[in-house]
Amino acid sequence: MRFAARVEVRLRPGIADPEGVTIERALPALGFDDVCEVRAGRCFRFEVDAADGAMARRRAEDLAHRLLTNPVIERSEVELIALAPVGEH
Amino acid sequence: MRFAARVEVRLRPGIADPEGVTIERALPALGFDDVCEVRAGRCFRFEVDAADGAMARRRAEDLAHRLLTNPVIERSEVELIALAPVGEH
Repeated sequence: MRFAARVEVRLRPGIADPEGVTIERALPALGFDDVCEVRAGRCFRFEVDAADGAMARRRAEDLAHRLLTNPVIERSEVELIALAPVGEH
Repeated sequence: MRFAARVEVRLRPGIADPEGVTIERALPALGFDDVCEVRAGRCFRFEVDAADGAMARRRAEDLAHRLLTNPVIERSEVELIALAPVGEH
């Protein structure tokens, strides 16, 4: 079965985020003074072939932690978007 | 009330994604031949002060479309993470 996964990679709290700071600084002049705490990160989507959802999650987490995340400054969150198979490609 | 929002910005289907392609090409040699269709994107998190969830969503979508997304090559998805207030800062 095939599963769709999303991995969100975020900077750990306390790690400087120049992109987020720059966006946040621009917001008041652009009419968004009701928005704050902007943080920028990365997202990855991919598909996993696995026997079941638990195995798919394990593989996705393994990939996220080993290849997509720098654990010194980042942490990642894995989400299986579709627990049903998403079909053939 | 304050709401937490997440915006995922993804390349539109058909737009070349060199980062995703590079990751996908490396996967078999790293033991992940069960993973495919890798796409890289960006994620933003921020907080919105709004009277209610509907207004918070409108503001977050406005921000996402006007400032965080290049509509020619990207599309974005807005999610309100917490519909309850996330507290004072």
